Amino acid sequence: MPESRRLKFIVSYDGRDFAGWQHQANVVSVQATIEKAFEKIAGRPIRVTGSGRTDAGVHALAQCAHADVPTKRMPAKRWGSALNGVLPLTIRVMRAQFVANTFHARFSAKQKIYRYRIIDGAIIPPLEIGRAWQVRAKIDDAILRRALVLFAGKHDFAGFSASRGKPDRGTVRTIVAAKMRRRVGALELEFVGDGFLYKMVRLMVGAAIRCATGKDSIETIVRGLREPTRSGPRLVAAAEGLYLVRVRY
Amino acid sequence: MPESRRLKFIVSYDGRDFAGWQHQANVVSVQATIEKAFEKIAGRPIRVTGSGRTDAGVHALAQCAHADVPTKRMPAKRWGSALNGVLPLTIRVMRAQFVANTFHARFSAKQKIYRYRIIDGAIIPPLEIGRAWQVRAKIDDAILRRALVLFAGKHDFAGFSASRGKPDRGTVRTIVAAKMRRRVGALELEFVGDGFLYKMVRLMVGAAIRCATGKDSIETIVRGLREPTRSGPRLVAAAEGLYLVRVRY
Repeated sequence: MPESRRLKFIVSYDGRDFAGWQHQANVVSVQATIEKAFEKIAGRPIRVTGSGRTDAGVHALAQCAHADVPTKRMPAKRWGSALNGVLPLTIRVMRAQFVANTFHARFSAKQKIYRYRIIDGAIIPPLEIGRAWQVRAKIDDAILRRALVLFAGKHDFAGFSASRGKPDRGTVRTIVAAKMRRRVGALELEFVGDGFLYKMVRLMVGAAIRCATGKDSIETIVRGLREPTRSGPRLVAAAEGLYLVRVRY
Repeated sequence: MPESRRLKFIVSYDGRDFAGWQHQANVVSVQATIEKAFEKIAGRPIRVTGSGRTDAGVHALAQCAHADVPTKRMPAKRWGSALNGVLPLTIRVMRAQFVANTFHARFSAKQKIYRYRIIDGAIIPPLEIGRAWQVRAKIDDAILRRALVLFAGKHDFAGFSASRGKPDRGTVRTIVAAKMRRRVGALELEFVGDGFLYKMVRLMVGAAIRCATGKDSIETIVRGLREPTRSGPRLVAAAEGLYLVRVRY
């Protein structure tokens, strides 16, 4: 096997153009697109590992990934520009650096930050198409804040996840912060946590919005965290409102 | 002539999809698209007048326009939703109200606010494509601020305009505010003025950026305002970075 070095790189992408991060048959994923770019440059297949999957439509400001690249005399920065020369404009390598072979984009991740954008109003501004979730019902900001606070802390989030086989490391996660702020014309939620289960952010947002629009009482979330179950009415917030903002190592 | 009432409405659009606001042969303009929507609803041609033109690629968060509509028993809000039912999603009527017949979207305008977004860096993030101007050279924020301050006040802006026939009311305008702020990953400039000449914002931004990237001295702007002329090297900042934010009456 040829000698190789581990390249860590930050990727930004427009989720609308891809069927999510993860390889899937017959669709264009971000991962497969980047692997193809690596292959074009290196002349042989190179496996790309991301910090985690993002679903179709979900955006990334700074997804993190690693790949083991041949040790040509090519600096990390050159790998970044070579990849950008091959990749479509909807995927950009923002930064690249060599790291120790012990670094793993997924297993070394300590914290992730997600943002969720909501347009609450009858009309979605053209520049927000594909970039926010439209909620037509009136949102009570105070209730939304109270709902978000409930998610903070260490909980079993099984009730706020979709099944996708067996999770690697159980369903307990710690949410360090769950906040909201009003922007001009949009509502921005932010979640910081040590990890997120499949569809967890979108299910938390959906549950919080059900409370904030009067469809559920805040007790539903309390109960959902105390007695984790996937039954009951659940609302999955739209993919296009979700942004992977940062992965911390 | 049938009786009519004057409808004032706020329009938001994604500039990438249109060859500018103004009617032009063989291309799709925002104005013509809205007029077609009116005709579909009213069954006869209706003229739409905007607060001013925006060029191809220029976005509007809140352009303002008026039209004289037939006095059916149709409330202003219904006109808004009827138009949105016919318009493409890239143009939205955000609000509509009836106003006095003396109101004129263009001549009654007292102030306009424009925003200009710049990405200064080698790589343009995918979600910024078509929404910002990429400046690869290093920008000196302090010089940019000094350059912007120069534009504030009452000046003859002939040197910062493109000719397009004879301007209605000379070339003297008052800029109330010209500011900048750093956002995460982007630079936002904002201009508030009693009116703007053709391509004026983009020429002011271009001139300021030439100073802030070391291509011109700040004296160039001082001179351009004191001795208005269209000669000399001029840089027109890209259309896609420009947003019409608001029109005040």
